[in-house]
Amino acid sequence: MNVLVWNENRHEQTNQVVADLYPEGIHGTIASFLKSDDVTVRTVTLDDEEHGLTEEVLNETDVLVWWGHQAHDEVEDEIVERVKQQVLEGMGVVVLHSSHFSKIFKSLMGTSCDLKWREADEKERLWVVDPSHPIVEGIGEYIELEKEEMYGEHFDVPPPDELIFMSWFEGGEVFRSGMTYRRGKGKIFYFRPGHETYPTYYNPEVQKVIRNGVKWVKSTDNTTPKYGNAKPLETISEKE
Amino acid sequence: MNVLVWNENRHEQTNQVVADLYPEGIHGTIASFLKSDDVTVRTVTLDDEEHGLTEEVLNETDVLVWWGHQAHDEVEDEIVERVKQQVLEGMGVVVLHSSHFSKIFKSLMGTSCDLKWREADEKERLWVVDPSHPIVEGIGEYIELEKEEMYGEHFDVPPPDELIFMSWFEGGEVFRSGMTYRRGKGKIFYFRPGHETYPTYYNPEVQKVIRNGVKWVKSTDNTTPKYGNAKPLETISEKE
Amino acid sequence: MNVLVWNENRHEQTNQVVADLYPEGIHGTIASFLKSDDVTVRTVTLDDEEHGLTEEVLNETDVLVWWGHQAHDEVEDEIVERVKQQVLEGMGVVVLHSSHFSKIFKSLMGTSCDLKWREADEKERLWVVDPSHPIVEGIGEYIELEKEEMYGEHFDVPPPDELIFMSWFEGGEVFRSGMTYRRGKGKIFYFRPGHETYPTYYNPEVQKVIRNGVKWVKSTDNTTPKYGNAKPLETISEKE
Amino acid sequence: MNVLVWNENRHEQTNQVVADLYPEGIHGTIASFLKSDDVTVRTVTLDDEEHGLTEEVLNETDVLVWWGHQAHDEVEDEIVERVKQQVLEGMGVVVLHSSHFSKIFKSLMGTSCDLKWREADEKERLWVVDPSHPIVEGIGEYIELEKEEMYGEHFDVPPPDELIFMSWFEGGEVFRSGMTYRRGKGKIFYFRPGHETYPTYYNPEVQKVIRNGVKWVKSTDNTTPKYGNAKPLETISEKE
Repeated sequence: MNVLVWNENRHEQTNQVVADLYPEGIHGTIASFLKSDDVTVRTVTLDDEEHGLTEEVLNETDVLVWWGHQAHDEVEDEIVERVKQQVLEGMGVVVLHSSHFSKIFKSLMGTSCDLKWREADEKERLWVVDPSHPIVEGIGEYIELEKEEMYGEHFDVPPPDELIFMSWFEGGEVFRSGMTYRRGKGKIFYFRPGHETYPTYYNPEVQKVIRNGVKWVKSTDNTTPKYGNAKPLETISEKE
Repeated sequence: MNVLVWNENRHEQTNQVVADLYPEGIHGTIASFLKSDDVTVRTVTLDDEEHGLTEEVLNETDVLVWWGHQAHDEVEDEIVERVKQQVLEGMGVVVLHSSHFSKIFKSLMGTSCDLKWREADEKERLWVVDPSHPIVEGIGEYIELEKEEMYGEHFDVPPPDELIFMSWFEGGEVFRSGMTYRRGKGKIFYFRPGHETYPTYYNPEVQKVIRNGVKWVKSTDNTTPKYGNAKPLETISEKE
Repeated sequence: MNVLVWNENRHEQTNQVVADLYPEGIHGTIASFLKSDDVTVRTVTLDDEEHGLTEEVLNETDVLVWWGHQAHDEVEDEIVERVKQQVLEGMGVVVLHSSHFSKIFKSLMGTSCDLKWREADEKERLWVVDPSHPIVEGIGEYIELEKEEMYGEHFDVPPPDELIFMSWFEGGEVFRSGMTYRRGKGKIFYFRPGHETYPTYYNPEVQKVIRNGVKWVKSTDNTTPKYGNAKPLETISEKE
Repeated sequence: MNVLVWNENRHEQTNQVVADLYPEGIHGTIASFLKSDDVTVRTVTLDDEEHGLTEEVLNETDVLVWWGHQAHDEVEDEIVERVKQQVLEGMGVVVLHSSHFSKIFKSLMGTSCDLKWREADEKERLWVVDPSHPIVEGIGEYIELEKEEMYGEHFDVPPPDELIFMSWFEGGEVFRSGMTYRRGKGKIFYFRPGHETYPTYYNPEVQKVIRNGVKWVKSTDNTTPKYGNAKPLETISEKE
């Protein structure tokens, strides 16, 4: 399996807290816990040529992991469209945290993807609401994060195909924090946690969920449907 | 529209707090805020003959509202089956609070309907997660209840057709507290709040949600499907 | 209720069959069966200024009905974006037949919305698969159309929130021909039939479904969620 | 993976056509194409003691495949309840053809599970409507069966979590013929084809779908939720 981790990689350049937390970038940390004998991981960032998302790279990618925040607008529309086509043709995507506002996610959802937020070092509990789902394999009843940014409802996304996690925040909000969507032949997993100033991506359970999510969104060897003008059963053609 | 409010009516006989809060029974209070020029409301209780759920009464009922808690087992199986048939044929049901464990709800869900609970005078916030739904007409972004019993996930029900409210509780739990299900020609709305020792059913927003819910589950004048052996299009019958 | 019927209105100018069938345009025919004491209907077409979809007109519209086919590309992106915002804020939309490929529908779905098709005068049967839904009020077990264009699966749209009709076609295909979607505060109903060379919009059952659909997508008086930075419960603010 | 194939095994005793088609019983044929290096398969039948479904056998079963038709009523309620508990705790189930009317399926669905049917040697086409799903791995755009029993809508089941196949029948009907449901920790796949007088279970694509389905419903190593009285976060307990 070939995984591509895409990171905006801007906070790491400008915010010392983030740079100290993620010395190899958020992408570097994510790549390190995704790598295994069966999983090859590459990382690319916004500032790479074509944001690192050339046709060639995408064609070799089974699953794309996306982290963006302050520079969504700098991602070129043409490349967003290219990524989207790849998803519809079967490339899986794991969309992390503030990437809810990325062009690619908004384009696949068809909504504003807006939400409430607050940075106040709040405790978050991500409760499992679908204990049958492969994405929560090896996870307990909830994941607790001592400090995270709050995201609150209403989260303006379509009703998900599957709701897996619901978050509780100290300050009084809830959030649908693990959700899946199918679009064309592609599968999408949105997973909420991961504000850049917290060590969230070092949490072993968060890592496990992302590994499970990568496995789940990976496409299987399915037929690509044909579209357009179609021939009928013989009985009809004879009739005419 | 004919609404039938069913109440177990046991706490009212044995718990002075409940008797003082709901002097005419929980059913009496619910009936009083459902009544209107367009809505006729009757109430029946567990101790009525056939629990008040005779064929005749059910045939005249558009929507059944159900509140039960400590005596679920005393509801006779035969009558549960009768109510279920009525639902499948189009009678709407609003299932309140502890009725998650009623025989009728469990039988329609096919799961244990179990959950976590705690009585600790906790604040509850019911957040609207589907702002397009008629059931939240006239409701703000959330309903806040100063003190309620906690219900927590995992709530062992099938994934709902529509998720409308998600609750936040002071003690760290979340809950899917407003959900709809379709079964046959019938519609079901489960709504969480309403522990017997709190004045929840006097809350104007809770009342509005239940009124909206009753309206939403009311069946429309739809055709009852035919089942069993079916005739083909003429072309097929000619072939044979 | 204020309904706005939008029609491309091109086939009517160039194809005599269509002109004869719909002398006042497809929009004229649709408007005529939607009008009632409670429903005010206006019609606009592609060639109107701003395609007839000014801010002012949209602000006065509860439900938009859309029919387009050969000129989807001529609808300006800016106006598509304007319509989309209106949907997310609560305007209902009924999307008819070949409008599956309209910019507005594709933008709300996030997929290609592609499908199979064939023009061969085939019989279509639209089977009701959700007999509890208000959109099929007054409709029998199926609607039969003697001759229609075939649309076949795979239909590249997200899994619908509700699947209401499934079509059978003589030549061997099936199609999800009545589906609902929620996007933001808006509701969407896609309804398949209505190829321009057939008298489909004169069929009383097709008319009834569209009338029911218009009623169903109409928004209720719901709160618009607030997005962005949010204040916590007092307990948190005190803590800090 | 341990798979248990359950068959009623009655038609095989009384109908020569079936006995000739499936000399080792329908269960024998299904077992033979499910077996592999990774998959151990056992078969049991209605006439076995406890229908072959002892606690011990069920505890060793990851996935149960069920085929029943004329003797649903002979399956004892106590054993149905035992199987259901096992499903809610994570055992996967593949429900085949006429087993739509089995006690175990009806009990998990909460509806009548009724449908239309006809035995008229009709062509069936099972169209893939979810090309992203692992259950259709290696399957083309549709599976065509020259002769099968017809099943038609309305199929009285809850709206599925996932709709994978929709069938077309020569005589004018459609059917949701591949669907998944989640109940508790268990996953369910209903797959329509397989009338006893046709060689359907020798069709390589039907076999592939059942193999894929078995893999898909297999539970992962998820935590079993705790239910009942729950402790709060420390902050709450301190408050009291």
